[in-house]
Amino acid sequence: MTPAPAASAGGLKPLVLTMGEPAGIGGEITLKAWLGRDQDFPPFVALDDPARLDALARGLGLEVPVRTIENLDLAASVFATALPVLPRPLEVEVVPGKPATGNAGAVIGSIETAVSLVRSGHARAVVTNPIHKGALYEAGFNYPGHTEFLADLAGIDSRPVMMLACDELKVVPISVHESLAAAVRGLKQEDIVTAGEITAFALSRDFAIGRPRLAVAGLNPHAGEGGAMGREEIDIIGPAIARLSEGGVDAFGPVSPDSLFTADARASYDVALCMYHDQALIPIKTLDFDGAVNVTLGLPFVRTSPDHGTGLDIAGRGRARPSSLIAALKLADRMAECRDAGA
Amino acid sequence: MTPAPAASAGGLKPLVLTMGEPAGIGGEITLKAWLGRDQDFPPFVALDDPARLDALARGLGLEVPVRTIENLDLAASVFATALPVLPRPLEVEVVPGKPATGNAGAVIGSIETAVSLVRSGHARAVVTNPIHKGALYEAGFNYPGHTEFLADLAGIDSRPVMMLACDELKVVPISVHESLAAAVRGLKQEDIVTAGEITAFALSRDFAIGRPRLAVAGLNPHAGEGGAMGREEIDIIGPAIARLSEGGVDAFGPVSPDSLFTADARASYDVALCMYHDQALIPIKTLDFDGAVNVTLGLPFVRTSPDHGTGLDIAGRGRARPSSLIAALKLADRMAECRDAGA
Repeated sequence: MTPAPAASAGGLKPLVLTMGEPAGIGGEITLKAWLGRDQDFPPFVALDDPARLDALARGLGLEVPVRTIENLDLAASVFATALPVLPRPLEVEVVPGKPATGNAGAVIGSIETAVSLVRSGHARAVVTNPIHKGALYEAGFNYPGHTEFLADLAGIDSRPVMMLACDELKVVPISVHESLAAAVRGLKQEDIVTAGEITAFALSRDFAIGRPRLAVAGLNPHAGEGGAMGREEIDIIGPAIARLSEGGVDAFGPVSPDSLFTADARASYDVALCMYHDQALIPIKTLDFDGAVNVTLGLPFVRTSPDHGTGLDIAGRGRARPSSLIAALKLADRMAECRDAGA
Repeated sequence: MTPAPAASAGGLKPLVLTMGEPAGIGGEITLKAWLGRDQDFPPFVALDDPARLDALARGLGLEVPVRTIENLDLAASVFATALPVLPRPLEVEVVPGKPATGNAGAVIGSIETAVSLVRSGHARAVVTNPIHKGALYEAGFNYPGHTEFLADLAGIDSRPVMMLACDELKVVPISVHESLAAAVRGLKQEDIVTAGEITAFALSRDFAIGRPRLAVAGLNPHAGEGGAMGREEIDIIGPAIARLSEGGVDAFGPVSPDSLFTADARASYDVALCMYHDQALIPIKTLDFDGAVNVTLGLPFVRTSPDHGTGLDIAGRGRARPSSLIAALKLADRMAECRDAGA
């Protein structure tokens, strides 16, 4: 990686926060996150359209001075009194709830700039607001999602791993956006091993956990009860755990899925490897709906995002809650600090 | 049903509590539940071997006077100062953790007696301790489980519905003990409709909820996102909800499974209908591992049980927690009260 510039006159390098879908709640939660900053809050720069953020703040009655900056070195000093914005002008006026293909270029450009800034060492980490894939596809975007686009920009071949994190629990789903039938059919030893390895490495580097302990969930009720209710634990998951252990990863299981997320059980591991989307998402959203953060593991930079969608249905009404974005900003800051300390 | 006898001299009719697997933790939690009784605790009678309960209490240092009774009318008055036991003598000495086929007759007899007492109106409700099916199968028991045996004793043809309940959440899984692949493959409109109808009726009768509101979960991530990640919501679950609504049940969904169990979401319904075992069990055990109760809906009497197994691995050591059994006894009492009030 490019060597990082020395710390600027403004102090700490900032986080960069992408625009996300401008017709969604991204702008509103960005403004509210700045308003919610406390003393130790990590300075961030919004890669967004300053005029639209300013108008949005006025429209919602949020007292947020928006300050355009061209140089990230100024971000930290500006941040105390105004929201620093590196301009990515929109082309089409924003109608809340109605994504416009004409703004896809700015949405994508915001992500590209964020990656470029973090890779050149001008920013500490990337935090992304939610995008609306439909609007981007119409404009020619052809990635399955945000994460795959970031992986491509980062120049890596492997698929990054999604982790959801809150104070009480970290979970990694082995599969994400596919039907449950496809997830069950497609469960592979190789995917469990790869996800386990990437997760263990990332928890060690970015969370300062010396030897991360991975709990691996079963797929079936009661983890199959010795093959009586499904054989995936015997044929796929057990062998994957054995390979992880042989490779030096501290992994155990397969654990009965319904007993993996109790308070006692959670105290026994650092992260739970889950066999499908909802096995991971149900417990974390049950425990902490507002504070869960989406973390991408396996990228050459730190990236987090709030664990919710674009909120098109509530956009522009002042009802969006910034708690997940605030948690995402704080977690990106802590992860970048761990990574820098270990670098 | 046989008319209930008038309230006895002893006052309130008791609950009957079955023995369950004697080599498991059933005896220990029965003794501890009696010790944990508070002022409003519902009197219960254990259908068990008085000598083994007495020996167990002494062995574990639990000060529980065991009193043999032959007439349930005496139970309530005895209960204040001793644990009333209607004798079901064991044939083989109990070795903790080692179920003996020779005791299967007493285990089964305890369940049969409980059903007979509640059906004749001598007991208010049945609470069952966990059984070990392996030991019973060897003795010729040929039901898939406890619930099916109870249904047969009750003389009903339809499959009863399992509900898990804690203070914060009630869930009904459409399928239970089968592999996840089989549960996905076997998901049927008919089963959702039947479970929904039985559940709505039971919540109204046994929980005094005038018009129960049922949230129906999707099967796939994000409830399939309009067919992009699985079609079961469109082909099976949606039509089942429509049929429930046409039949007068207040049902809505399919709801994205990962957002169905947040505090806000839970406030919007009385019970969640879940499409497979762990979709129901993960959130309730995450919320309340010790206090969740297993309730059987669709029987002609009230039946609850603790939401855990026989605990063979910790039997006889004094470590078993009675909280789920205590919750099961209290819930059975409240349900019987509702049912009696409405009868």
